[in-house]
Amino acid sequence: MDQDYLLTTETARRLYHEYAQGEPIVDYHSHLSARDIAEDRHYRDLYEAMVEPNPFKARLMRAAGVEEKYITGRHTDAFTRFQKFAEVIPQAAGNPIYAWTHMELSRFFGIAEPLTPDTAPDVWEKANRRLAGEDFGICGLLGQIGVKLICTTEDAAADLKYYRRISEAGLPFRTVPALRLDKVLRIEDPQWENYMKYELGEAAGVEEAHTMQDVRAMLRQRVSDFDALGCRTADHVLDYVFFAPAEEFELDDIVGRIINGRGEPSRKEAEQYKTAVLMTLAKEYAKRDWVMQLRFAAIRGANVAMTGKFGDDAGFDCIGDYDCAVALSGFLNALSERISLPRMIVYSANPADQPVIASVLGAFQDTATDRVRGIPGKLQLGTACWFNMSRRALDHQMEAVANFSVLGTAVGMLADAHTPFSLVRHDYYRRILCRYLGKLVEYGEYPGDDGALGSLVRNICWRNAEQYFGFRI
Amino acid sequence: MDQDYLLTTETARRLYHEYAQGEPIVDYHSHLSARDIAEDRHYRDLYEAMVEPNPFKARLMRAAGVEEKYITGRHTDAFTRFQKFAEVIPQAAGNPIYAWTHMELSRFFGIAEPLTPDTAPDVWEKANRRLAGEDFGICGLLGQIGVKLICTTEDAAADLKYYRRISEAGLPFRTVPALRLDKVLRIEDPQWENYMKYELGEAAGVEEAHTMQDVRAMLRQRVSDFDALGCRTADHVLDYVFFAPAEEFELDDIVGRIINGRGEPSRKEAEQYKTAVLMTLAKEYAKRDWVMQLRFAAIRGANVAMTGKFGDDAGFDCIGDYDCAVALSGFLNALSERISLPRMIVYSANPADQPVIASVLGAFQDTATDRVRGIPGKLQLGTACWFNMSRRALDHQMEAVANFSVLGTAVGMLADAHTPFSLVRHDYYRRILCRYLGKLVEYGEYPGDDGALGSLVRNICWRNAEQYFGFRI
Amino acid sequence: MDQDYLLTTETARRLYHEYAQGEPIVDYHSHLSARDIAEDRHYRDLYEAMVEPNPFKARLMRAAGVEEKYITGRHTDAFTRFQKFAEVIPQAAGNPIYAWTHMELSRFFGIAEPLTPDTAPDVWEKANRRLAGEDFGICGLLGQIGVKLICTTEDAAADLKYYRRISEAGLPFRTVPALRLDKVLRIEDPQWENYMKYELGEAAGVEEAHTMQDVRAMLRQRVSDFDALGCRTADHVLDYVFFAPAEEFELDDIVGRIINGRGEPSRKEAEQYKTAVLMTLAKEYAKRDWVMQLRFAAIRGANVAMTGKFGDDAGFDCIGDYDCAVALSGFLNALSERISLPRMIVYSANPADQPVIASVLGAFQDTATDRVRGIPGKLQLGTACWFNMSRRALDHQMEAVANFSVLGTAVGMLADAHTPFSLVRHDYYRRILCRYLGKLVEYGEYPGDDGALGSLVRNICWRNAEQYFGFRI
Repeated sequence: MDQDYLLTTETARRLYHEYAQGEPIVDYHSHLSARDIAEDRHYRDLYEAMVEPNPFKARLMRAAGVEEKYITGRHTDAFTRFQKFAEVIPQAAGNPIYAWTHMELSRFFGIAEPLTPDTAPDVWEKANRRLAGEDFGICGLLGQIGVKLICTTEDAAADLKYYRRISEAGLPFRTVPALRLDKVLRIEDPQWENYMKYELGEAAGVEEAHTMQDVRAMLRQRVSDFDALGCRTADHVLDYVFFAPAEEFELDDIVGRIINGRGEPSRKEAEQYKTAVLMTLAKEYAKRDWVMQLRFAAIRGANVAMTGKFGDDAGFDCIGDYDCAVALSGFLNALSERISLPRMIVYSANPADQPVIASVLGAFQDTATDRVRGIPGKLQLGTACWFNMSRRALDHQMEAVANFSVLGTAVGMLADAHTPFSLVRHDYYRRILCRYLGKLVEYGEYPGDDGALGSLVRNICWRNAEQYFGFRI
Repeated sequence: MDQDYLLTTETARRLYHEYAQGEPIVDYHSHLSARDIAEDRHYRDLYEAMVEPNPFKARLMRAAGVEEKYITGRHTDAFTRFQKFAEVIPQAAGNPIYAWTHMELSRFFGIAEPLTPDTAPDVWEKANRRLAGEDFGICGLLGQIGVKLICTTEDAAADLKYYRRISEAGLPFRTVPALRLDKVLRIEDPQWENYMKYELGEAAGVEEAHTMQDVRAMLRQRVSDFDALGCRTADHVLDYVFFAPAEEFELDDIVGRIINGRGEPSRKEAEQYKTAVLMTLAKEYAKRDWVMQLRFAAIRGANVAMTGKFGDDAGFDCIGDYDCAVALSGFLNALSERISLPRMIVYSANPADQPVIASVLGAFQDTATDRVRGIPGKLQLGTACWFNMSRRALDHQMEAVANFSVLGTAVGMLADAHTPFSLVRHDYYRRILCRYLGKLVEYGEYPGDDGALGSLVRNICWRNAEQYFGFRI
Repeated sequence: MDQDYLLTTETARRLYHEYAQGEPIVDYHSHLSARDIAEDRHYRDLYEAMVEPNPFKARLMRAAGVEEKYITGRHTDAFTRFQKFAEVIPQAAGNPIYAWTHMELSRFFGIAEPLTPDTAPDVWEKANRRLAGEDFGICGLLGQIGVKLICTTEDAAADLKYYRRISEAGLPFRTVPALRLDKVLRIEDPQWENYMKYELGEAAGVEEAHTMQDVRAMLRQRVSDFDALGCRTADHVLDYVFFAPAEEFELDDIVGRIINGRGEPSRKEAEQYKTAVLMTLAKEYAKRDWVMQLRFAAIRGANVAMTGKFGDDAGFDCIGDYDCAVALSGFLNALSERISLPRMIVYSANPADQPVIASVLGAFQDTATDRVRGIPGKLQLGTACWFNMSRRALDHQMEAVANFSVLGTAVGMLADAHTPFSLVRHDYYRRILCRYLGKLVEYGEYPGDDGALGSLVRNICWRNAEQYFGFRI
C-alpha cells in the first residue's frame, strides 16, 4: 500500500495528491466519546487502540475460527489477542479491514510492513512505543490526521458537560454532539419505560410523562439543548422503514400504557409511536435546518444469545431485507405535506436498496410546497457504511449517487469511527473517489479538466459537509 | 467525448466504427408525438428542445437545489433556465444526463466544448441558430440521425389520424404507433369511468359498456385499429406484477360497478380486472404476433403533492421494491396454458429484479405447449430504461441477458425519447455494447473474429428489432 | 481461450500456473451417478456427453428459439441436435455455457477451434472418436481432470450398494455420497406419503411411521448409513427460508394425517414439519461434524406445464425473490440455542440475497454458546451456483465472501456437474480466483507476495474443502 494505492490512473493520482490528500476532515458521524476527548485519553496498547473497539474486527476473527476467549473473553492477554488478529489478517485478502489495518499502521505508526503472524511482535512493540508518547492521546491523533470538526453521537438523555469542557480546552478541532434517538424510539425494549421516565425525563426536566405531548415536550427540550452546543444533526436507526400515522388519542393510549408498565406495544402500535416521534423531531430539525439521518434495514442483535451476553453493538447484527419504497415515500409525503421536509440523509444496510432509495429521494427534492430556498443535495443517499464500507460498496454507492443524483453535491465520507485511527477511512474514501473520477476521464465521460475535477474532489471531501450541515468551523 | 468515447479496447473501437456507428435506428418505444412529426414541429430554443421535455433533467436540477421557478415555474425565461441547467451539469459527473447532453450538442449542433455556466451563452446562441434552420424540424432531425422506423406510444383511445398523414408525407423513415394501455388498466383512477365510457368507448365505437365482455370488445377493436396502421407492439405499465384470476361474473360485477360510478375497486378487484384485461390483450397480441411489453416496479406519482400540481410524468415517480417471481410465473403459466404466450419484453424499474426476471423468462421459452415455431429470444429481459439508463445499468442489463439468455437475440436499445435529440442514446448503447464485446475478446472469452462479432453488433443494433417486432420497413 | 484465458494480470497468470492449474479437484456437490462410476459408463456421442444432461444448455437452446423436438423430443437424431446447439453457441457471447463448452472441448478432446455451425461436423467426429476410447469412460475422465474426491448426491432412500462396489474397484479417486433430503422435505408433494412409507421406511428399516418421532428415527438411521460410507455433507433445497417451531403434538398430527393420506398440509403446517426435520437433521450433522448445505430462493418447476411433461430438473425452474434475513436468523438462533449449530453452507439462487446471507452468517460464527472449538469459516456463503455460475456471478460471490468474511477460509468451487466434463468449471473458478487476487495486487490492496498468495490459492482450490468437510482422501 504505497502512496498510489488504489489510484489506477494518472488523473486519479494527480487529483488525490493535489486536491484530496492534505485536505481537512469534517466527520458527521462517529462513536468517539466526548469524555475521552475532554480527557485526552491514551490507549494502553495496540489491541485496545485498534482491534478491540471495532465490532467488525471481532466478526472477522470469529469468521476465521478464533475462539471467543481471544475476543470477548477476559482471561487472555492483549498481545495474544493481537497475535490472533495478526493470524487472520493475511487470510482476509479483499476485506476492508485488511486495508484499514495497514492504512492505520502506516499513517499513525509509520509501519509499512504487512501485518502477519511473523511481523506481529515487532509491530506490537513499535506501535506500543508510539502509543506511549504524549502526542498519541486522542486529541493528538485527531489533530495529526487533520480533523477540523467531528460529530460524536450522544443519546438524547446524555449529560453534555464534556462538550463545555472541550470547547474551553482550545483544541485545534471542534467537537459537536450528534443527537441519537435509539432509546427514545425503541418502545418495545423493556428498558424503555425507565429510560423515558428517569433518564430522558430528568435530562429534559420533565417530571411526569403520560401523553404523547409530554414525549414531544421532552424531545423539543433536548433538541434545543443539543442545538445550544452546536449540534446540527440527529441519527435514527430503524429495523425497517414504516409509516403509520395515528390519532393523538391512540398515541396517548400507547405512551400512557407502556410508560406505566401496563403491557407491551403491538407491532402496529410501536410503528405508530415511532412515526409520531419521527414527525415531531423532523419538524424541530426543519425549524433549525438540522440534518435528519435515517438508517434502516438491519436486524440488531440478530444473534440473540450472544447479544444477551455482550449487549448491543458487539458484532451480532445483520443486514435486513425489507421493502422500503412505499413506506419511505409515505413518510416523505407526510413530512412534505404536514410540516417542512428537513435535510435528510437516508442509509440502508442492504445494498439492494440503494437504487430504490436514491430514486425515492429524487422524487422529493422539489422546493414548491414549502417555499424554502433550493438546497443542493437536500435529500442524500447515505454513503455506504456499517456492513457496506468495502471499496466495492463505496464504489457502488458513489455510482448510485452519480447516476441518480448530482455527485458534486454529495457530503462524502463518515468514518463511523470508534477510535481516531478509523479516520483513515476518509483517506480510503478519497482514493476511491479520485479513482472513480479518473475512470470517468479515462473513458471519455468527463473532461480531464483539473480545475473542475479538483473542485468536485475538494467539495466532496469536506466542503459540502461543512456547508450542508451548517457547521461553524 | 471524442469519437472513441467509451471504446476502451482496440476491438471495441473497430466494432463500433465498422458495424455500429453508421447503422440505422429502429426504435420500438418513444414518446414522440405523431402530430409533431406530421407537422414537422420546430423547437423554439435549446431549452424547449433539450431540457424541458425530459423529466429526468428536471429531477437533476431539483437534486442540485435549483428552485421550481426555474423548472416548473412560468415566470422565468428560457435562457435563465438553460443557464441554471448549465450550472448543474459540471457537478453531475457520472450522470447519464451529463453524457447525453454532450452527445446531443456534439451530434446535432457540432458543439464539442463542455457545457458549463461559462460556455452556456455561447452554446445557447449557436444551438438556437441551428434550431432555426429549415432542416432542424423533427423530421429533419430524425432523418439526420438515421432513423428508419420509430414507434410512438399512443393511448388506446387516441385519434390516429396523424399516422395517415405521416404515411402520405413520403418521409425517409416510418412512424408506427405503439399501443399504450395505462388508462385502460388504471381502474383505481377516478377518471377511469369517464375514460372508458367516453374516450375509449367512442374510439372503439362501443356505445355502452357494462360487462367485461364489453371491455374486451373495445380492446379487440382498438388492437385491430392500431394493427391496421402497422402497430406491432403494446406497452403495459404496472406498479407491481400480480396474477389474480377471477370468474366472469366477478369481473362483470367489478366493471359494472366502477364504470357506473358505484364505489371504488378493492386492491384485489383491481388486480382481477387488470389480470383479465392483460389476458385478453395477450391473446390478441399472440394472434397477430405482436410484442407485449410489460413494465413494472415503479411507484407512479410517489410525491403526491407535486404530482397533484403537475400531473403524471413530471419527474415525481420512483422505483418500487416488490417481489415478482411468483406472480410473473403465475401470469406466464396462465398465458401459456390457456392461450398462446405472445412475444414479450419484461422490464423492471428495480435493477435487483433483473436476474429474477431473466430466470423466470428462461423457464418459459419452450415451444412444446403451443405448437408454434421457435422464436429467437421470444421472451426478453427489457433493456435498462427509465431510472436505469446509465452506462452501468445498461452494462448490467447486457450482462444479465448474456448470462441468462442469448445476447445475440437481444432487440437492443429503446431511447424512451421525448425529443429526436434523445435518440443519441442509441449511440450510447452501441458504444457500451462494443465495449462489452471488446472486453470479452480481451479476456479471451470470445474469439476476436470480426465477422462473428460484427454480425452480433449489427443484429443487436437494429436487425433483431426489425425481425422480432415484424416491422415492415 | 488460450492458456491465459481470464488471467489479465501478470500476478494472475503466475498464481494460476504455479498454484492452481495442476492442483487436484475435491468436489462436494455433483449429480454424477454412483452407478455410472461403478460401471465406468461410456457416452454414446458428444450430444449425450455434453449437451443433453445439462438443463441449462436446454434453456439456452430454447432461448435461442430452438424447437422442443431438438431438445426434449424423441424423433430427432443426436447430430442434428448437436448442430442446433452449435448454431446457438456463437450467439451466446458472454454466457457461461459459451465458456464451458470450449473449455470442455479443449481440455478433454484437444479441440481448440470455436464451435460454430461450420465446425460442428468436424468437432462431432473428432470428439466422438475420442469418446469411443477405452479411457473415455467416466472413471478415466474423472482421473484425467485430477479428481481426488467427488461427492455424488443421493436421495435419503437410495440404495447405496454402488458405493461399496466403487470402493472395492481401487479407483484413483474417492467417491462418497452426499445425502439429499428433497423428497423427505416435500410434504406438499402427493408422492410424499408413498415415499415415506415405502421408500424411506424400507431403506431405514422402519415398518410403520405415524409420528414425528418415527420420522426422526428414519432420518437418524439414514444419516448413520450414509456416514458409514464416508458421507460428510447433506443438501437441503427450500423454495424460501422459514422458521416455524411447533409443539410435538402438532407435528404428530401433521405427520400422522398426511402420511395416512388424510388431506394436505397447510402452508404453515408444511413449514412446521420442515422446520422439525431440519432441526433433527442439524443435530445429527453437528454430532458427526458433517456440513449442512442449505439452498433456497428458487421456484422449482415454475413452468407448470413443461414440468408436468418432463419432470423436475428439466430446465423449468427460476430464481425466487423472498425475504430471508429474519427467517434465517430465527433458524440459526434456534439451532445455536437448542442444539449445536453444525457447519453450514448457505446458498441463495437470488444474487441480491448474498450480502444479506453473508451478514447473517457473520453474526453466528461465535463459539461461546456451544463450547466447541473455533472452526475457520464455520458458516459459509455458498459459492455461486445454479443460476449464478457466470464469471460475473462467481466474481461477485467471491467479493461478498472477501468483504463480509475471510476469503482464505472459503471452500471454493462445486461444479454441480451432471457429467465429468462439467468439472472444467473448477478451472473456470480457479482462473477467476487468480484474476481477483491479481487485481488486488495491481491496485495495491494486497502485497505481491507469492508465498502468501499461493497458499491462499491452493487452500481455496481444494485444501480448505478437504479439511472443512473432513474428507479422508
